Amino acid sequence: MAPRIARAARRVRSAVRGGAGGAKRRVRLDNDERRAQLLALAKRAFADRAYDDVSIDDLAQVAGISKGLLYHYFPTKRDLYVAALTEIADELVEAVTRMHDELAPIDRVRAAIDAYLDHITRQSRAFVALMRGGIGSDPEVAAVIEGVRTQLFDKFLLGSPFATLVAGDVKFQTAIRGWIGFVEATSIDWCANPRLDRHAFRELLVEVLFQTIRVVAPGLTGT
Amino acid sequence: MAPRIARAARRVRSAVRGGAGGAKRRVRLDNDERRAQLLALAKRAFADRAYDDVSIDDLAQVAGISKGLLYHYFPTKRDLYVAALTEIADELVEAVTRMHDELAPIDRVRAAIDAYLDHITRQSRAFVALMRGGIGSDPEVAAVIEGVRTQLFDKFLLGSPFATLVAGDVKFQTAIRGWIGFVEATSIDWCANPRLDRHAFRELLVEVLFQTIRVVAPGLTGT
Repeated sequence: MAPRIARAARRVRSAVRGGAGGAKRRVRLDNDERRAQLLALAKRAFADRAYDDVSIDDLAQVAGISKGLLYHYFPTKRDLYVAALTEIADELVEAVTRMHDELAPIDRVRAAIDAYLDHITRQSRAFVALMRGGIGSDPEVAAVIEGVRTQLFDKFLLGSPFATLVAGDVKFQTAIRGWIGFVEATSIDWCANPRLDRHAFRELLVEVLFQTIRVVAPGLTGT
Repeated sequence: MAPRIARAARRVRSAVRGGAGGAKRRVRLDNDERRAQLLALAKRAFADRAYDDVSIDDLAQVAGISKGLLYHYFPTKRDLYVAALTEIADELVEAVTRMHDELAPIDRVRAAIDAYLDHITRQSRAFVALMRGGIGSDPEVAAVIEGVRTQLFDKFLLGSPFATLVAGDVKFQTAIRGWIGFVEATSIDWCANPRLDRHAFRELLVEVLFQTIRVVAPGLTGT
């Protein structure tokens, strides 16, 4: 990180922390820093509370700015939500697709699923509300979700050791897309009510992936 | 069907058909019949056109009633949409869960998937728009979708030959819920862009189900 950006990031973190503690003190931030601070507060708020329980008044107060200034950055609560959601989605994609070239394929899949479970556990409430449409989704929100799926799908295929073998294989692509649907459906339930322990849940996802690949590309799994 | 209901159903069908052809003639229907007629027209409209392109004016005209009377039954377009959607969902659940006790388990699964694919093919546009959230979903719409999943899940488990074996088995339940997510994800894509032929797609869904069951309950699939 460049020193200027690192300093700005420290100021934002400090503004977020200071704010969370009550925030009498006003911190001067430039536009980008202010936006980043508001996003960080919003991400935390939407992860902790239901959409309807997140108050713009409270957020402005915690940020140490006027409600008017907050609306200058995010004209509506929905805008702030979509922006926070987009950041959460980007972080998810980044974490899940971080390459672990040193690992064997099955352990790479495990690492990716671990990263995914870490992420959704941290954002549990926001994740469940979002994916269940409980907050009332709209085309913009749907586009963010669809973007995550597409990116995970692409990175998964391109980054996999099978990439060249399955290029253009519609059956394989359908199976991977389906498995992402499997992961989504079960992890929403798991976040809301983790009836399987995390290890068992992760292994289920891994095994179903390998069995699914076995269906569409028997050669790849050596069976 | 009782004769009175059968007569009413004929009148509704005739009103819907007559309407679709231009409908100068006004048909007197009682409340339930009128509601059923409007729902039938709405289902067809939302299946044929995007939500935003469905006009309440047109629907009222085709039904041969005033816009005001239509709003008496369904105060907003969204209400009409949710009602039509609920009917589509009920029909889906009914078709998919129709029991074929005479068939072997694997053929029962095939029959259920066939019924599902028939249904979503007929409602293709409405199905895709709905599931992708492209029309802007809300808690009511989300509840309808979640209701379909839960009913399919319950019927699948209760109606399956494994019902008693897997009662209370969290891993098995998670796997079935995941497979429903698999079917949903792939069939939305398939409706929008059927790159696999229908037979190949159905067999993929069947095989992935059996492999998934094999992961969580090896004894049931004889492996």
